[in-house]
Amino acid sequence: MEITLTGITTTGTPHLGNYVGAILPAIEASRRKDVRSFYFLADYHALVKCHDPALVHRSRLEVAATWLALGLDVENVIFYAQTDIPEILELTWMLTCVTAKGLMNRAHAYKAAVADNVADLDKDPDKGVTMGLFCYPILMAADILMFKASKVPVGKDQIQHLEMARDIAARFNHLYGEHFVLPEAVVDEKTAVLVGLDGRKMSKSYGNTIPLFEPEKALRKLIMRIKTNSLPPEAPKDPDTCTLFELYRAFASTEETTAMRARYAQGIGWGEMKQILFEYLNDRLREPRTHYHDLLARPDHIQQILQRGAARAREYSAPFLAELRHAVGIRPLGT
Amino acid sequence: MEITLTGITTTGTPHLGNYVGAILPAIEASRRKDVRSFYFLADYHALVKCHDPALVHRSRLEVAATWLALGLDVENVIFYAQTDIPEILELTWMLTCVTAKGLMNRAHAYKAAVADNVADLDKDPDKGVTMGLFCYPILMAADILMFKASKVPVGKDQIQHLEMARDIAARFNHLYGEHFVLPEAVVDEKTAVLVGLDGRKMSKSYGNTIPLFEPEKALRKLIMRIKTNSLPPEAPKDPDTCTLFELYRAFASTEETTAMRARYAQGIGWGEMKQILFEYLNDRLREPRTHYHDLLARPDHIQQILQRGAARAREYSAPFLAELRHAVGIRPLGT
Repeated sequence: MEITLTGITTTGTPHLGNYVGAILPAIEASRRKDVRSFYFLADYHALVKCHDPALVHRSRLEVAATWLALGLDVENVIFYAQTDIPEILELTWMLTCVTAKGLMNRAHAYKAAVADNVADLDKDPDKGVTMGLFCYPILMAADILMFKASKVPVGKDQIQHLEMARDIAARFNHLYGEHFVLPEAVVDEKTAVLVGLDGRKMSKSYGNTIPLFEPEKALRKLIMRIKTNSLPPEAPKDPDTCTLFELYRAFASTEETTAMRARYAQGIGWGEMKQILFEYLNDRLREPRTHYHDLLARPDHIQQILQRGAARAREYSAPFLAELRHAVGIRPLGT
Repeated sequence: MEITLTGITTTGTPHLGNYVGAILPAIEASRRKDVRSFYFLADYHALVKCHDPALVHRSRLEVAATWLALGLDVENVIFYAQTDIPEILELTWMLTCVTAKGLMNRAHAYKAAVADNVADLDKDPDKGVTMGLFCYPILMAADILMFKASKVPVGKDQIQHLEMARDIAARFNHLYGEHFVLPEAVVDEKTAVLVGLDGRKMSKSYGNTIPLFEPEKALRKLIMRIKTNSLPPEAPKDPDTCTLFELYRAFASTEETTAMRARYAQGIGWGEMKQILFEYLNDRLREPRTHYHDLLARPDHIQQILQRGAARAREYSAPFLAELRHAVGIRPLGT
């Protein structure tokens, strides 16, 4: 059976761009019966960038609630927090011992940090770089290899990490025998990119996002703020350069999109279009939003779901780690 | 109460030089009642350098048997294998996330490896360097900080690692509150250095060692091989340039040493001196050697001792890790 693994970043509040680009396809995939799927909160990874404990804690809760509210099928997939699987870090150390430092030197995220420093001649090239940033491809390799995932859906920026996981796995297999499955990256080339409030790609770094579960009033306010041109209501308008239309199209059916193109050609007032968009998004998000807030009020229920997932995940990780310990020579004396 | 921690390398067969320089003082210290002492087999560290599983396994057994045979007081100290304390690697990751890469760049062992490579212009400076070598000061910091050791007996080559552990602990404390005790290195300046078969320092890298539990016949053969000058038996001899005398002195009492100096002044035959030295060492090592071989034949007994030690160690590490998880934000949801 094919095995897939999906890591979920636990920092930052999910926004509509995340939803359309990553969460929605992943949640649809969680209903597939023909694969064994692991979905996990990457909360050990969160410690690399976030040293604010309250935020780390809150983000774990919010992100778990978000995925559950949007319909992650936790009966079908194994959904757990990375920090509930202690075997992951033991495996990380075993992999650390066989990973060439030269491989990590070539990681994009590390090289980008160095490039920023080198641009300023007074700086140490490694200024501000933590070992967490430097080592995290090894942790990611452990996440994947632990569950023998053969297919890992990733964004383009993660392809290199998958290649590193393959390299590390191959090195380990060479030294200790064929224990690991070499994973393949599955990159969805059609990944939808959503525009943000200012017409650029919706991204936290641009500060142009619409948070996924913004309360109704705040959602309306954000949409009313979207910049439009100064054409009068009756003038025909170009949908393909319009942020409002782009946002509408990301959620609407083909028929609805075609109908809306016609309205643009006839002329539609910006106020009316903003109201339509708001109502459309709000209808779509109302139910999961309610579900999300219900879940936030029951963190112990989420904890139970995660604990159950961790127990299921450890049915794989615990015996596999025992096998790997034996392989490297960490064996009970007397055997 | 003062807390001390002693790490025991599990690679290589212990020799008389190890015994005199490190093992003997550590075993004497294991009887101190005024401190809480942790002694551990550094078997996760062994994976950095040794990729031969059978050797890793065998070395754990032999090294544990050696320390037990020599009288490590396992009722008084907490004696465990690092690989039986999964909390160590979780802590390692937490520390990894707060350790500056620049700190690791300055580690002596890493710098020495790079210097070797740089001497050869064609090589990548990081050629042959694994992430295990690069990261191991962080693992060592976790070993120490986990048990709040305030005093760590180390060789001079380990002073830098202790300073790194302090740096990392201080950084964590700064970010998350005062959780860690800053450890101090205890360097025994008088550490005895034993000469080897060729008169140089006894060291595995010189191939001039006398293994601690060499069988009687082999021990005699090694001692008979020690090079001496060609003075006739009756000629007075200089004890201070004589390997045989140096080895004798390392084990003998002050009185015995003075008496032997007198024999050298009178003239002593090399054959006779070699026989005296062999008998002296053999008498001294006979009992622990027998004990060692008895222990090797009962690996399950050693395993039990280590398991009991691990259970005692985890009485400290498990609640402390829970505290640290809470500190960084890895908390049960619903709390």
